[in-house]
This record gives sequence, C-alpha cells and structure tokens, in this order.
Amino acid sequence: MDKKNYCVIMAGGVGSRFWPMSRAGRPKQFLDILGTGKTLLEITFDRFRTIIPAENILVVTNRDYGELVREQLPDLPDSNILLEPSRRNTAPCIAYASYKIKERNRDARMVVAPSDHLILNEDKFLNVVQDGLKFVGEEESLLTIGIQPSRPETGYGYIQANGSGKAGSKYKNLKKVKTFTEKPDPDLARVFFESGEFFWNAGIFFWSVKSILKAFQHHLPEMYAVFSEGAGKYDTNAEIEFIDSAYADCKNISIDYGVMEKAENVCVITSEFGWSDLGTWGSLHDQMKKDKQDNVLNGKEILTYDVKGCLVNSPGKKLMVLQGLEEFIVVDTEDVLLICRMQDEQKIRNIVNDVRIRKGDTYI
Amino acid sequence: MDKKNYCVIMAGGVGSRFWPMSRAGRPKQFLDILGTGKTLLEITFDRFRTIIPAENILVVTNRDYGELVREQLPDLPDSNILLEPSRRNTAPCIAYASYKIKERNRDARMVVAPSDHLILNEDKFLNVVQDGLKFVGEEESLLTIGIQPSRPETGYGYIQANGSGKAGSKYKNLKKVKTFTEKPDPDLARVFFESGEFFWNAGIFFWSVKSILKAFQHHLPEMYAVFSEGAGKYDTNAEIEFIDSAYADCKNISIDYGVMEKAENVCVITSEFGWSDLGTWGSLHDQMKKDKQDNVLNGKEILTYDVKGCLVNSPGKKLMVLQGLEEFIVVDTEDVLLICRMQDEQKIRNIVNDVRIRKGDTYI
Repeated sequence: MDKKNYCVIMAGGVGSRFWPMSRAGRPKQFLDILGTGKTLLEITFDRFRTIIPAENILVVTNRDYGELVREQLPDLPDSNILLEPSRRNTAPCIAYASYKIKERNRDARMVVAPSDHLILNEDKFLNVVQDGLKFVGEEESLLTIGIQPSRPETGYGYIQANGSGKAGSKYKNLKKVKTFTEKPDPDLARVFFESGEFFWNAGIFFWSVKSILKAFQHHLPEMYAVFSEGAGKYDTNAEIEFIDSAYADCKNISIDYGVMEKAENVCVITSEFGWSDLGTWGSLHDQMKKDKQDNVLNGKEILTYDVKGCLVNSPGKKLMVLQGLEEFIVVDTEDVLLICRMQDEQKIRNIVNDVRIRKGDTYI
Repeated sequence: MDKKNYCVIMAGGVGSRFWPMSRAGRPKQFLDILGTGKTLLEITFDRFRTIIPAENILVVTNRDYGELVREQLPDLPDSNILLEPSRRNTAPCIAYASYKIKERNRDARMVVAPSDHLILNEDKFLNVVQDGLKFVGEEESLLTIGIQPSRPETGYGYIQANGSGKAGSKYKNLKKVKTFTEKPDPDLARVFFESGEFFWNAGIFFWSVKSILKAFQHHLPEMYAVFSEGAGKYDTNAEIEFIDSAYADCKNISIDYGVMEKAENVCVITSEFGWSDLGTWGSLHDQMKKDKQDNVLNGKEILTYDVKGCLVNSPGKKLMVLQGLEEFIVVDTEDVLLICRMQDEQKIRNIVNDVRIRKGDTYI
C-alpha cells in the first residue's frame, strides 16, 4: 500500500431524518442501520482499510462522539481521531485534516469521504478510489466522484461534466467539471437525467495536500490563515487548545460552496457502483434487498400479513406483527416507536422538532 | 342488601381477539383494557358489589387463573372462587355455581354475568339487575337481558320478544321470549334492527336456584345428574376432586343452547345502558371516548400526526409517534407490537394461530 495515500472519513453528522434510530447522542454513522452487524462508520473504515493503512486513515467527528469512534474502530490510532469542538460544515473539517496530514507527509494524497453512505459494489468503488488517488498525485487537480444517475432524483446535487473525456487522459471516465448545481426540482431533474451530462454529487473528493491547501489559500484565505497558525502544533499537546480557538474563528461553510464551485482545476471521475447517501429511511428502502411484497424488513422477529412496500426496522427482540400496511416506515427502538407514511418521510424532521417541544430532549 | 341475592361472574374466557394484550396466561378480563386503572374483572366485581355483598359473589374461572382472581379481588372470599379444571362452555359453569349456591341458600336468586363486558350507565344497569332479581324471586322464570340495538350489528346473537309487554306485569320492559337467534348476516340484521322486536343477547341471566336446577333437570338431565352427585361435597375438602370428575363427564355446551333456547318459561328484560361485549379491538373503539380525529388513544406517551379513526393501546412508557395511519389498530406490549387494519380485525385470530405455528407459545 502506498504510504503517501491518506483517507479522511467525515463522521460529524447528526442525521435527524433517521430518528428515532439515530439520536443526538448516537447519530446514523454510529448505527447498524443496514442490519449487517456493523455500523456505517465501521463499514466505511473497513472498506478503505483494504487499500489504505489504518495509520493513514483519519476520522473527523464532533468531540461528543470521540468515545464512540474509539469504541467502534479499535484499530484506529487515537491520534487519528480529529475532534471538532463545534459544527462548522465540511470546509473547516477538511482544512483541519489537510494540515494535520501535511505535518506527517507533505507529499500526501487524500481521499475525503462521508462515514454514512451506502456503497454496494465495493470493488468498483475501490478501483475508482485508486485511480483518483493516482490522478491527483500526478496533476494539481481537485477531483470529485460523479455518480451516473439511475433516476431523476431531486434529493441530490448534480455535477455537470464537460461532454468529452479529459483530452489525452489515461484515466477512464475522467472529465473536467463545468458546474455544480443545487438539488433540482422534478422538471429540471428530468432534464439533467436525460442529458447524460449530469452526475450525482457524492461528496467524495481526491486531492494532494498541496493542491487543497493552495485552493484554501486562494478561495478561503481567512480559513487558510487560521489553520496555518497551527503549524507545529498538530499532533502535539497544543493541538486541542489550538483547534478550539481555530474553530471559534472559522465560518460555517461547505467545501463545495467554499472551494469546489469556485476552483478552476476541478475534475470529476464518473462511475456507478451502487451508491446512496442514505439520507432518509426511504433511500434505505430504495437500496436494500426487498421481499416479494417490496418490503425491507430489518429485524429477526417481524411477521407481515398483507404488507407492501414498507421499511421496517426493529433491531430488538420484540415480535412485530404487521398487517395491512402499505408504504409505511416502521421503526422500533427501545424507547420510541415511529410509524410514518413513506411519502411523508420529509415530515420526520418537523415531527422530531415537535417531539422536542412537547417531550423535551429525552427522546431526541 | 338482600342476603338471598347472589351473583355469579363468569371469568374463564380466553379472549384471543385482544391479542397481543390478552395472552393465554392473562386473558382480557384480567387486563385494564379500558385504560381506567382497573381490570374488567375488577370493574365487574365493584359494580355488583354495590348491591350484592361480597360473600354472595362467586367468580368461576379456569384453574390457571385462580391466582389472578385472588390478586385482583382481595375482598372476595377464597371459597367463592370456583375453579374449573377444563373449559366446558357456560352450562357446566352455571350448573357448578348453582349447586354451590343451593348448599348455602336453597331460596337464593342469582344474576349470572360475564366478567369482561362494558357497561357505560351503571345506575341504569343496576336498576335492571334489581328488577330482574326481584322478578325471578316471585316467578319461576328464566330471565335474560335484551339490549335495545343501536345499529344492525352482525356480531351479536338476538332475542326476539313477544310484541306486547308481559300482561299484567308490574315490571317495565319485561316480555316473554319468542326465539333466540344466532348472529345474523347483514340483511337479516337490518330486518331485526328495524322490526323493534329483536334485542341483543347480552349473556346476562337471572333465575332462582330452584328454577335453574329444574331447567337443568328437564333440558340437560345428564349434567343435572352429574352435579347432583356433589351434594354435601360443595364447600368441603372433597369439592376439588368431585369437580375434577364431574367436568370429565360433562359435555361442552352453552347455557343458551342447552337451556334457554329450549325452555318455555323464558323472559327478557329490555334496556339500553350502553353495553358492549368488548369482543374485539374495534368494539372497544366504538365504545370509547374519541379525540377530534376519531382516535382512541390509550396511553400517556402517544403523539399523532394526521392519524384518523385509530385505536392505539400503549400502556408502557415507550413514546409512540404515529403519522398517516387511518383506521388501524396499534397495540404495543412489552414483547409484541401489533399493527392491524381495523376492518381486518377478524383476522387477528388467524394471525395468532400463525404466530403460534411460527414462533411457538412464547408470544401467545
């Protein structure tokens, strides 16, 4: 394995749409949401570990979740857990990790990925990662993964690629990026889908440490300055205190908005390896193996009678007997049962807010 | 209170349609199914106790439930709990109780009632009971209560009364019975409902000990003979052994089929005091107070969003968050969650059988 290759796993999300399984104290990435016996973070770590040594994998998370990361990834060196004192979106998270890696290896190349996505074809994905890391080792480019859309999805941002492949490139499916777009409305999503030029933005990035720091310097100079101050402090006892003050000075901004949409040297590597951001219970239903009645049943003790198109999550020992439900989400946890129409799953956020107002933080 | 008045509460039922709240080890009558803080048996006992002394109230139940009766009715003398060794329907149960009462008071009058019915207007009911007991003390008659139907219900048996009141009777609403009928189909139920001659059979009876034993002698002579053998053994150490052999010799038959439908001296006292046999979750929904969306929510921690016409039973501390359900039954117990369309509640019996086949007796 190439010692210059690093991986940054972003694990600071809250995932409130997966309530009540996902809770403030244990968000989605720390849960076995797929019912495989492993949490999403564990799956993500194991996946990268096949091509990147554990000592080169960094996990960035909120300080509240440090212990959870330590528990779930016992093979990850303690010094590779980066604890954020507050939530500042992806740009500060990536700046922090990039500086920390720079102190270890100035020639490092990085892949940055969320901790809570679903990837079905791991081999295909890892081939893309290896191509990506190789490419950004050779060219001063910011590279992102674009997923070949399988439907006119309105829940994802899109990347528009230049029609032709990167001229003269030895890499398959590598193109210059024309634009990044926000989540489209249904009509626009259909246009995107049919054009063949648009790809889902998976939020997975590749770059060399040099390239990304140069990009920060150019597009987010204040943030660049803040984290530059830390030189010599990363991986020392002074790191925590420095990060506290750095985050206090940082603005809340995503890497997409702060860097990728502004930079000129942005490329996309397109693929289709069975990907979902697992943003909602419905997306989990879309991706997982269904029974003959189009149900996804996660749990050992679930009996269904005349039940269709449902997602049922019941990790405990309780016997669940369901009759007559069509297109519902049923999630049973130790202290909360949620039943919600699949088509109304966007309302779960509002429901969680209402629960907080009426019942306090107990169930959040 | 008249010392000659006795009450027999029949508490041997299984109530599988109230699964999963009702279980083989704790059927419906032993549950706080109305969410009032009292079980149906406790409510029934308390109701009769206002007009009949506790030492004159007998509870007949299966041997498996003796301890439950003792726990729930601490004021009931132990010798008033009649334990059946097997299930033989209502005729043997009533024969047993009648003989036992005869040994205590040959001039006794009895009211016989199920332990698991709903009665909303208790005063009106108790007036009927007092009239009934008085009447059967004066006339050698078998008296039953007929409930004025409020809808063309197909779930109850009906009693057809003679058009005119009992000639010369000083009792209001007392009529001779013309026929008993089985549960009708919807067309027939409509005819019954519109005729004004038909009343719901509530399974509540009055008679003197003398009258009912005479009726057994005439219509169920074998059963009469079997229980006559026990003379001198009731309320002694020999009772249990005798009852074991008596029940082994007894056929399984209801008092309606074995006696009431054959006897000539049967009268009905009609009333409407808000009655339901609480045969199903749906009947509970019909009877109970509903919120503005026509829901009955039994439980402290139930939040509903866009939920209509549902019955929800969640006696525990779990927070239940329900969205988008219409006309469903949701019952959560410690080890089973049941969700079932209200219109399909008759299927619960089959579901319980299927659960038994697939999961064994654990959840039954």
